[in-house]
Amino acid sequence: MSHNTFGHLFRVTTWGESHGPALGCVIDGCPPGIAFTVAEVQSYLDKRKPGQSKYTTQRREADAVKVLSGVMPNDGDDALITTGTPICMMIENTDQRSKDYSEIARSYRPGHADFTYDVKYGLRDYRGGGRSSARETAARVAAGAIARKVVPGMQVRGALVGMGVHEVDRDRWDWDEVDRNPFFTPDAEAAATFADYLDGIRRNGSSVGAVLEIVADGVPAGLGAPIYAKLDQDIASALMSINAVKGVEIGNGFEAARITGEDNADETRIDEYGNPAFLSNNAGGILGGISTGQPIVARFAVKPTSSILTPRRGITADGAETDIVTKGRHDPCVGIRAVPIGEAMLACVIADHYLRHRGQTGRV
Amino acid sequence: MSHNTFGHLFRVTTWGESHGPALGCVIDGCPPGIAFTVAEVQSYLDKRKPGQSKYTTQRREADAVKVLSGVMPNDGDDALITTGTPICMMIENTDQRSKDYSEIARSYRPGHADFTYDVKYGLRDYRGGGRSSARETAARVAAGAIARKVVPGMQVRGALVGMGVHEVDRDRWDWDEVDRNPFFTPDAEAAATFADYLDGIRRNGSSVGAVLEIVADGVPAGLGAPIYAKLDQDIASALMSINAVKGVEIGNGFEAARITGEDNADETRIDEYGNPAFLSNNAGGILGGISTGQPIVARFAVKPTSSILTPRRGITADGAETDIVTKGRHDPCVGIRAVPIGEAMLACVIADHYLRHRGQTGRV
Amino acid sequence: MSHNTFGHLFRVTTWGESHGPALGCVIDGCPPGIAFTVAEVQSYLDKRKPGQSKYTTQRREADAVKVLSGVMPNDGDDALITTGTPICMMIENTDQRSKDYSEIARSYRPGHADFTYDVKYGLRDYRGGGRSSARETAARVAAGAIARKVVPGMQVRGALVGMGVHEVDRDRWDWDEVDRNPFFTPDAEAAATFADYLDGIRRNGSSVGAVLEIVADGVPAGLGAPIYAKLDQDIASALMSINAVKGVEIGNGFEAARITGEDNADETRIDEYGNPAFLSNNAGGILGGISTGQPIVARFAVKPTSSILTPRRGITADGAETDIVTKGRHDPCVGIRAVPIGEAMLACVIADHYLRHRGQTGRV
Amino acid sequence: MSHNTFGHLFRVTTWGESHGPALGCVIDGCPPGIAFTVAEVQSYLDKRKPGQSKYTTQRREADAVKVLSGVMPNDGDDALITTGTPICMMIENTDQRSKDYSEIARSYRPGHADFTYDVKYGLRDYRGGGRSSARETAARVAAGAIARKVVPGMQVRGALVGMGVHEVDRDRWDWDEVDRNPFFTPDAEAAATFADYLDGIRRNGSSVGAVLEIVADGVPAGLGAPIYAKLDQDIASALMSINAVKGVEIGNGFEAARITGEDNADETRIDEYGNPAFLSNNAGGILGGISTGQPIVARFAVKPTSSILTPRRGITADGAETDIVTKGRHDPCVGIRAVPIGEAMLACVIADHYLRHRGQTGRV
Repeated sequence: MSHNTFGHLFRVTTWGESHGPALGCVIDGCPPGIAFTVAEVQSYLDKRKPGQSKYTTQRREADAVKVLSGVMPNDGDDALITTGTPICMMIENTDQRSKDYSEIARSYRPGHADFTYDVKYGLRDYRGGGRSSARETAARVAAGAIARKVVPGMQVRGALVGMGVHEVDRDRWDWDEVDRNPFFTPDAEAAATFADYLDGIRRNGSSVGAVLEIVADGVPAGLGAPIYAKLDQDIASALMSINAVKGVEIGNGFEAARITGEDNADETRIDEYGNPAFLSNNAGGILGGISTGQPIVARFAVKPTSSILTPRRGITADGAETDIVTKGRHDPCVGIRAVPIGEAMLACVIADHYLRHRGQTGRV
Repeated sequence: MSHNTFGHLFRVTTWGESHGPALGCVIDGCPPGIAFTVAEVQSYLDKRKPGQSKYTTQRREADAVKVLSGVMPNDGDDALITTGTPICMMIENTDQRSKDYSEIARSYRPGHADFTYDVKYGLRDYRGGGRSSARETAARVAAGAIARKVVPGMQVRGALVGMGVHEVDRDRWDWDEVDRNPFFTPDAEAAATFADYLDGIRRNGSSVGAVLEIVADGVPAGLGAPIYAKLDQDIASALMSINAVKGVEIGNGFEAARITGEDNADETRIDEYGNPAFLSNNAGGILGGISTGQPIVARFAVKPTSSILTPRRGITADGAETDIVTKGRHDPCVGIRAVPIGEAMLACVIADHYLRHRGQTGRV
Repeated sequence: MSHNTFGHLFRVTTWGESHGPALGCVIDGCPPGIAFTVAEVQSYLDKRKPGQSKYTTQRREADAVKVLSGVMPNDGDDALITTGTPICMMIENTDQRSKDYSEIARSYRPGHADFTYDVKYGLRDYRGGGRSSARETAARVAAGAIARKVVPGMQVRGALVGMGVHEVDRDRWDWDEVDRNPFFTPDAEAAATFADYLDGIRRNGSSVGAVLEIVADGVPAGLGAPIYAKLDQDIASALMSINAVKGVEIGNGFEAARITGEDNADETRIDEYGNPAFLSNNAGGILGGISTGQPIVARFAVKPTSSILTPRRGITADGAETDIVTKGRHDPCVGIRAVPIGEAMLACVIADHYLRHRGQTGRV
Repeated sequence: MSHNTFGHLFRVTTWGESHGPALGCVIDGCPPGIAFTVAEVQSYLDKRKPGQSKYTTQRREADAVKVLSGVMPNDGDDALITTGTPICMMIENTDQRSKDYSEIARSYRPGHADFTYDVKYGLRDYRGGGRSSARETAARVAAGAIARKVVPGMQVRGALVGMGVHEVDRDRWDWDEVDRNPFFTPDAEAAATFADYLDGIRRNGSSVGAVLEIVADGVPAGLGAPIYAKLDQDIASALMSINAVKGVEIGNGFEAARITGEDNADETRIDEYGNPAFLSNNAGGILGGISTGQPIVARFAVKPTSSILTPRRGITADGAETDIVTKGRHDPCVGIRAVPIGEAMLACVIADHYLRHRGQTGRV
């Protein structure tokens, strides 16, 4: 994993800034012979793209993806087929408003990477946050659309399970509901609560954090590798790499620290087909860093958007104290749009491990 | 990061099983000219080694480390000095009792990696858990002892902050207390509570989880790299790679999801020396994946030991159902000994990023 | 180094095929603060681009490069400045003629990768050779243009020193001559010989190989790393990755095998400034895998273009025997255009090692 | 590939110096279920070990290998079986004579890495050359013994084909002869010539270089990956990493540069089983970086031993000029013992690509 690449056999490199001409990804190591359509990739990008509801930034980007390499026309339909060579996908930026950011070119916004980029590099692209902008995540979503097809039978879905002080009720969990509300939440009642709550937050010029849960069904047992390529470790890394993420859990996560060994153990029986049947999934589908065949379950915490209208005490690049108000177009809860991003990252990690497992053992 | 290696410029590879002749690590990329003594390395290993109190496994291992390569005698004292070539350190196993495990050679212990190793590899070293045993972490601790010396002025310390249902009181936090109780906890009153609590757990043949916090002071600003080599991401990966860890947080972690942007922002002023002064550290010392110069703060959740005397429903390699009781010598709270391990992992990650940052930018 | 990436801290990923919409590269890990102009990059691409003389393919490509990310406008001039984030450069394909290749879609041209791609991937992009086309090398040249600026004071130059049975006379070596003839050869008399020779080859529908030499001056001592990151090893890898290369030498290369230790030793004296002065450079500037401060000298052999008008016995994807004549637009000596490519690869390798050395040792 | 590691899925890390307590390797990513005996590994080490004839250094090392991890006893015989976890093998040094080197601790021997190590690291382990000693290659040979078993049906053999001004006659090539003479050469008449020649060289206190050829039979088509993981590129890298190697060729190598396209093309027919049958192997079994199914053929040039009794002009670490005579125990033709090393490196590279190909494509 280098600075802007993740994965080992299914490797994703992303490039591009918020206010440059374009951004994109290069997928290296994708298996040959995978058919997909540009429309499929676009459908995931459309879930992530801004301006979908009043709860997300009003920046207008079509986020139209172009596939520049690594594919051939598929015989007999309008799909593309991967050739095993690098797949470059590009999304052009169209709605940059650099002027929005000009006044903060020399200011360090609290909670942002302005200060740390300047310290690290000695200069920084202040236009829309440059590389630190969440626009980069569009490239991840495009990569994830391909990753989803690498593991036969795998389905990766995500949902928002908490926003600020509110949480979903898991007894009302309905995956179909996720696509029916602007929060990607599986609980219709919670969606109503979130709507009221976020309206207030937004009117106050404030922002709020969120907790998301991503689940991968249909993942074969045996993926992941001890000791430093554990599946849960690579998932934690991938999710923590998403902008604003401050915590990651696998399975019951921090709850595991609070309970006893007998309560935490996922007991096992033999099912009617002679296969192992776990009676619970506290482990989140991973034991010893290797998938068990149960659903992979990961959660992550997204901090509240740092760009807010409420003034915060900050400093400038010149060492002066100042009060900072971040105008511009921002999400009051940036966690919402992280749902398709989290899905994409989980899909990429599992696809990578699928290939790695096949490489070492030949057992899938 | 390959299967048994982590880090990029400061790279650590570990090898060895619970019941083989030895285990160890190879550090590749260590800067030349770093002086250290074997006794220093041993002091960290002694913190981790079993049999130190009634709260840890009674396996007796000296965990005596030998340095096999990568060093020369230092002029004028009894220290060694790194030459820039690979440092191999070895710890011989002496107190294996393979017979303890023979009866579970064909059983899959709930919560253990027995099933997943078998599925992955088609065979497994059942002797003491083989490679999945926490004995492997001794090699990490040895590597961490060197990593601590790579970043000038860095200090890495860890503490147990929660055990089962109990937590420390942060108002009583005293780093000196950590070395005075068998739980590596900074709160003397909590130590007494933990002692009673864990006595009960142990007597019941049960086990319990823990939450640990690791803090690195003296880390320069600018370490870490967007987008997929974020410092927090690599910390999450490193901590999640420790046996039994199910969750990782940076700074205020999951709490960030529950609060508003104005409460979460770490406001900044200019201190008397003209340097940035953060008024809080919700970010845990990292913004945009890059260190701010504040202390790096990470927490992780360790699940309860899966090896317990209470019978659990499980299965065998032959597809039969069975009840499993794991005898042998086990820690009732394996999280305790994870303190020096977490410190080692954090030290290694930061050392790696220190070298990476210097490589790309030449700015330290 | 993954499939389509090389380098470790200065990492270059290339993407794109002969007949797709575009090809390009992503440079990850480039130091921040390096100023360059698009015109500079273009000047190297222009050296490599086809259609420059009657001795190269008549495909007409402007090879106009666009810089899509990783840069900001430099203050005060028309240069760009690197920000330390990934630099994506794109070159659009404009003169594809897919019909030229349709008749060989099912044929395996002798000496080409047609057969091996099909065996490996189960399908292949036959349009212009797809990813195996030398068009990919344009992306390398673009990356090399940036790499040249990473090591202060480094100059990388290349020359054609042999074509088929003819060689240059090293006593007539004149670097300025390289840019005055269509062969990039430093010997004006040899250029005349090559012209006659290659005219004949071309008229015969044949092709011929070449030997190239690349020299890097101004490389500081200390770059490269034992044991498996030797500078010469990474140079060998980089040059062997160029299409049609079958051999690589460092310094006196294979000649070293024929002479004695006393003749091969580069003796050393102290120069007037107190610095080491080597009396010869059989080592090609590298000892023990580490640069000595002398010029780095590497040579490589390029096989004759496999696409020829002379019929050769071959087979088809359907297992039939056939005679194959490769029409289309081909270089009679593909080695000529490998000069800027070899320069680019050497520059990239040295830039990478410069950063790696700085990372581990802090000594530059 | 990091400093002391090579390979990606079959990864080999070596550690250890000439005069430390031990040296060894760690193989990470080896497939599980491979059976081998310590005696097999030892047999390859015995080919490489010093003191076998009057033509190699008289240092006496048993080079007895111990397997410390990554294996279990195999059922029913005395073999070991790989578990898929890291295999650490160790060879203890027993015949160090550090005093032999004390007088050159401050001298830079011409042709050696003394100067470059000092420049790079600021210090150097002068005892026996430290990490730059060819003793490190014992670890490669041990790793190669396992690699040979990864690709079903693969056989890797090497031979010395040239020594100084003398070459073998390929018409007399006999693989069985290789094990019957102290030069690992396949031509009995050449062996006699080499013996006389090297006797003279040795008596003169001189040394001489050699050319070696390594051939891998039984390698399936499809291994290797464009563009920067070409099989020939990784072979070139691996062979160039061997001490004293200055050139590498694949197939007909530099000869390819001298001939025409029609002569160089390996024409193809369909054999009696319907499979492709190449009529020649100028390509050395690799086209477009991917194996063709023909034998993989690589050659490399080894320079003459730099440690000679003939005085050479050199300098000291203190900047003084001096004459240097390297006493001690040295090989007059270090190329001889490079035969098992070259075999090991080729085996490791192919094993790695076998796993990588399986990982990406699932096609073996």
